[in-house]
Amino acid sequence: MLNIGLLGAGRIGIVHARAITAHPASRLVAVSDIVEENAAKLATEHGAEARSSQAIISDPAIDAVLVATSTDTHSDLIEAATAAGKAVLCEKPVDLSLERARSCQAVAGATGQPVMIGFNRRFDPNFSALKAAVDTGEIGKPELLSITSFDPAPPPVEYIKVSGGLFRDMMIHDFDMANFIMGEAPVSVFAIGSSIVDPEIGKAGDVDTAAVTLTYSDGRIAVIKNSRRAAYGYDQRVEILGSEGLLQAQNMLENTVVKSTAAGVIGAKPTYFFLERYMAAYEAEWASFVDAITHETAPPVTLDDGVAALAIAEAADLSAKKRRLVAITELF
Amino acid sequence: MLNIGLLGAGRIGIVHARAITAHPASRLVAVSDIVEENAAKLATEHGAEARSSQAIISDPAIDAVLVATSTDTHSDLIEAATAAGKAVLCEKPVDLSLERARSCQAVAGATGQPVMIGFNRRFDPNFSALKAAVDTGEIGKPELLSITSFDPAPPPVEYIKVSGGLFRDMMIHDFDMANFIMGEAPVSVFAIGSSIVDPEIGKAGDVDTAAVTLTYSDGRIAVIKNSRRAAYGYDQRVEILGSEGLLQAQNMLENTVVKSTAAGVIGAKPTYFFLERYMAAYEAEWASFVDAITHETAPPVTLDDGVAALAIAEAADLSAKKRRLVAITELF
Amino acid sequence: MLNIGLLGAGRIGIVHARAITAHPASRLVAVSDIVEENAAKLATEHGAEARSSQAIISDPAIDAVLVATSTDTHSDLIEAATAAGKAVLCEKPVDLSLERARSCQAVAGATGQPVMIGFNRRFDPNFSALKAAVDTGEIGKPELLSITSFDPAPPPVEYIKVSGGLFRDMMIHDFDMANFIMGEAPVSVFAIGSSIVDPEIGKAGDVDTAAVTLTYSDGRIAVIKNSRRAAYGYDQRVEILGSEGLLQAQNMLENTVVKSTAAGVIGAKPTYFFLERYMAAYEAEWASFVDAITHETAPPVTLDDGVAALAIAEAADLSAKKRRLVAITELF
Amino acid sequence: MLNIGLLGAGRIGIVHARAITAHPASRLVAVSDIVEENAAKLATEHGAEARSSQAIISDPAIDAVLVATSTDTHSDLIEAATAAGKAVLCEKPVDLSLERARSCQAVAGATGQPVMIGFNRRFDPNFSALKAAVDTGEIGKPELLSITSFDPAPPPVEYIKVSGGLFRDMMIHDFDMANFIMGEAPVSVFAIGSSIVDPEIGKAGDVDTAAVTLTYSDGRIAVIKNSRRAAYGYDQRVEILGSEGLLQAQNMLENTVVKSTAAGVIGAKPTYFFLERYMAAYEAEWASFVDAITHETAPPVTLDDGVAALAIAEAADLSAKKRRLVAITELF
Repeated sequence: MLNIGLLGAGRIGIVHARAITAHPASRLVAVSDIVEENAAKLATEHGAEARSSQAIISDPAIDAVLVATSTDTHSDLIEAATAAGKAVLCEKPVDLSLERARSCQAVAGATGQPVMIGFNRRFDPNFSALKAAVDTGEIGKPELLSITSFDPAPPPVEYIKVSGGLFRDMMIHDFDMANFIMGEAPVSVFAIGSSIVDPEIGKAGDVDTAAVTLTYSDGRIAVIKNSRRAAYGYDQRVEILGSEGLLQAQNMLENTVVKSTAAGVIGAKPTYFFLERYMAAYEAEWASFVDAITHETAPPVTLDDGVAALAIAEAADLSAKKRRLVAITELF
Repeated sequence: MLNIGLLGAGRIGIVHARAITAHPASRLVAVSDIVEENAAKLATEHGAEARSSQAIISDPAIDAVLVATSTDTHSDLIEAATAAGKAVLCEKPVDLSLERARSCQAVAGATGQPVMIGFNRRFDPNFSALKAAVDTGEIGKPELLSITSFDPAPPPVEYIKVSGGLFRDMMIHDFDMANFIMGEAPVSVFAIGSSIVDPEIGKAGDVDTAAVTLTYSDGRIAVIKNSRRAAYGYDQRVEILGSEGLLQAQNMLENTVVKSTAAGVIGAKPTYFFLERYMAAYEAEWASFVDAITHETAPPVTLDDGVAALAIAEAADLSAKKRRLVAITELF
Repeated sequence: MLNIGLLGAGRIGIVHARAITAHPASRLVAVSDIVEENAAKLATEHGAEARSSQAIISDPAIDAVLVATSTDTHSDLIEAATAAGKAVLCEKPVDLSLERARSCQAVAGATGQPVMIGFNRRFDPNFSALKAAVDTGEIGKPELLSITSFDPAPPPVEYIKVSGGLFRDMMIHDFDMANFIMGEAPVSVFAIGSSIVDPEIGKAGDVDTAAVTLTYSDGRIAVIKNSRRAAYGYDQRVEILGSEGLLQAQNMLENTVVKSTAAGVIGAKPTYFFLERYMAAYEAEWASFVDAITHETAPPVTLDDGVAALAIAEAADLSAKKRRLVAITELF
Repeated sequence: MLNIGLLGAGRIGIVHARAITAHPASRLVAVSDIVEENAAKLATEHGAEARSSQAIISDPAIDAVLVATSTDTHSDLIEAATAAGKAVLCEKPVDLSLERARSCQAVAGATGQPVMIGFNRRFDPNFSALKAAVDTGEIGKPELLSITSFDPAPPPVEYIKVSGGLFRDMMIHDFDMANFIMGEAPVSVFAIGSSIVDPEIGKAGDVDTAAVTLTYSDGRIAVIKNSRRAAYGYDQRVEILGSEGLLQAQNMLENTVVKSTAAGVIGAKPTYFFLERYMAAYEAEWASFVDAITHETAPPVTLDDGVAALAIAEAADLSAKKRRLVAITELF
């Protein structure tokens, strides 16, 4: 039984607490949050204690910490926890700064402690089935990847301002998905972004609609589309064309009921947002982390993966601002 | 080039005229109708002459006649045309009376002239693909057939009164489809019918909603559902369970556009009614008739098939009225 | 917090144990089974005790019992538990004998204790969404119901022999679904059954393929199809035609991945069997039971519902054997 | 009745001949082709004469010519035919050279004769339904367009060499579709192309896989993906995200049959190639041309539209070669 400390009791921390408790081989023993009553409330619900992050990290009885705090604290907490001999599962992104993420990578890497980055979508049953089909050659050689990722509604502008921008905050999931499916990083990035959903987002210096083209060393291509708004819900689709066919992971729907009337044939909408869509993914992510620690194998998503996705995000941000193709090597 | 006479210039006659003209090996030379101006109009559109049915049948220059008149004239016209040495394609049903249909079968059969009955659905690309898949064993041994057949809206009660009733007029298509898919006639029939769509239909002595169960000598089962009203259009589906899987022929849709909004995911409705849904089937039906005459092979749907479907309809009618299982042998 | 005793630690007992533990307001305290080690194992996994059924029923600290034993013990256990002042959730069917079920109904009813029957499918998110749409009039007046219910593979013949037959064991779920959707019991039943999947089932006196037609007092019709074998998995569909449209609850699929190759467009199969398909339903069922007990409201599925479904099963069995329409009133 | 001359009796000429003959208000009177026997054969089939292109253009009895010759002759023939007072329907693209196309635009424009460019996909029932839904505001303000356009198999390398390259030959359809759906031309183009399907195509200086991003003056974005090979057939999809929802025009399938077996749920493939997929579109295109000439209204797709699409193609070609964003204004 692994004793787990959870840093961060916000929306995503609550999700992780549930997964930790539900897993037969892990137990939530302590929770921290900058809002102490949030930590206390979540701790009580799971029979755990509310403590400070520092107290959790320094407790020798705790085997691993799950970092679900604000992004600007991720690197520091990863370094502190690995220095204290803990295994770490940290929410994405590693950091808003590629430079800081890379120094964290060096520092945490030197400890030898396992660090996993929470790219939950790799564990979605649909995307992992698609990846398995690619890997077993069901569509021959993969050639052209498309990722569609639309949020149901934009976050508050206050959030946008501290988010690091669409490429680091939202599309980073899709950059990791591209790395996951294609099995390697791209060599160049071209990004176009606009603020057409909400002019306030544009005033805050960010974009809300974007298209990115990734190119690979062997000529393969990936296209990623993001929008902060889809009136019909959370749109999360991946498709890849290969030499022998096409694979598509389509949206999950709220239910399977179809109504046919004079108005048309009406089906259910996609499951609303990430909590509904990815609950099974969060559970599978946690199970794979527990499994890696227990069997002392490498976590399936590493700090290197987190840095790799962040590098693409930074290249995309630069490309969109400069309106030119950016080589990944420019960033190193 | 076959010279064709068309008897009947009503709605279905117009469809057939188009198919006759479009076929490279047939030519419409004469049209008759009890409303002479209808015959004249249709004849003009196709460069043909308007004549009486008798004149068409007795014209030695005409190779084949297509009978698209009212049902009560079918048997007489089949007998007259075959006696005159014509090949015949006659619309379904052969007759409203099984006894009369069987005497026609004997009389026309004795002439040796080919007679085909217009069960157009056998030529629908979807149903014929399903039948081909059954025959090549793609689902192993067929066991349980389901046919769903709903019209978009009930016909006028005046039509109902002379139609012979739902089982002879509407479900007869499905009885033939069952014979086509299962490859043999059933041994018993159980039918339930209600008038719940339109009470006027009930007052006219007919039903508008019905479910029929057919059983076969080896224990196989078929279920047919009919309704005179589907608010969303013409619903025409067939599915069959076999020992190794399921085949479903689904509806054809007006287009492939799907709209996702806050209200749901909305697709197009089924193609509206038989002209839209079965236009390709009418053309394929005509092509197969031309092919059979040209190559002197048996038509793919015979007068025997017409009588077989009518026998099931008569058994269903009896079953619904007596509220008991009826053996097909009771009718012979 | 409700203290729960679970009678029966077989396959379905394990499912219920998980739901009891997962619910925040219920706690599994004791488990019984005729195989004591099964009870011990399941009890240990949930921090409960293994005891005899009698000990559980007579323990005043236990608030409710969940009966998941073999069907022939259901009536006795319902009577004993309600006599001891327990609330009861009992798996379907109430009994194999309608007469015994009705005496149980009288005896348990006299105690005033709540008894719920485990027709889990009412709690499936798809079927409950369909029912809600019917009740809010989204398709106008319901007219024609169709239920398709195929198991992936037949059970062992030893099971068949003690099952009470397809109508009582398997189609009883669909009879309850019909009662649920239509909102009333049918007035007559016509059933046809065959043994075409496995001749051993026929030798054991049962059928493996069946079609049943239910008729309602106002002329509405329901058609139910069952097969013990669907090579592609568990096929669980409901559709209902109303005066203003059609509602269909389609199968849930293993995932949303679609592969297009030269061989066709290939999607995932339906979720395999009832554990996969109905896990969410079992959890929702348990939550509604806890809710009813906690708020002292009537359970959403009562012992009366269990008897009503069993009456249709008995009528279907009689109809199939006698090959005639059976009125429900014949059984009372 | 319009008298039509057809220039070009190749694969696409045959399609157009059929549409001309099938239309009640047009008649094919003459056919030309550089292979005279092809012209003779097609003319015979349609009761027309084989002549030279010059003879057709100079015949005062001919009202309109349809240009279906090789691309390098388009501009000359458009100019000659309009100078001779004919209406013209010319296959896409106008020319391989933007400069030549623009001089043709000036010369033909000066004659005042109507010239329509054969962007047949605008007349596809699915894409035109999508366009109509966009225009009536069903998804609010359009924001992000995606076009997927994959051919089933690459053409011979000999064809590639004279085709003008993927952007002018294949993606030009999609550039016109973007102009059609978005209602205006883009301001900038970024293109990435690779030869990963067939290395011979790369050796011939062309690409076989490409992704293009178009940006519009108000920040809207379009993404187009092309591949010369889709093992499952012709993949032709359009989707557009708007402020209130998403519209998708999906592929048309060969039939509606779905087979469920232990191997999965298998549906039909997309209709194979442009003749199958777009036959209805070719007929609707011809009907709209006849309609425009008859009613002396502007054709729905003009020479300006042809030049506009070609300009994007030229910009894309430049972008892919220079690996940079290209403003449309650079070409003028």
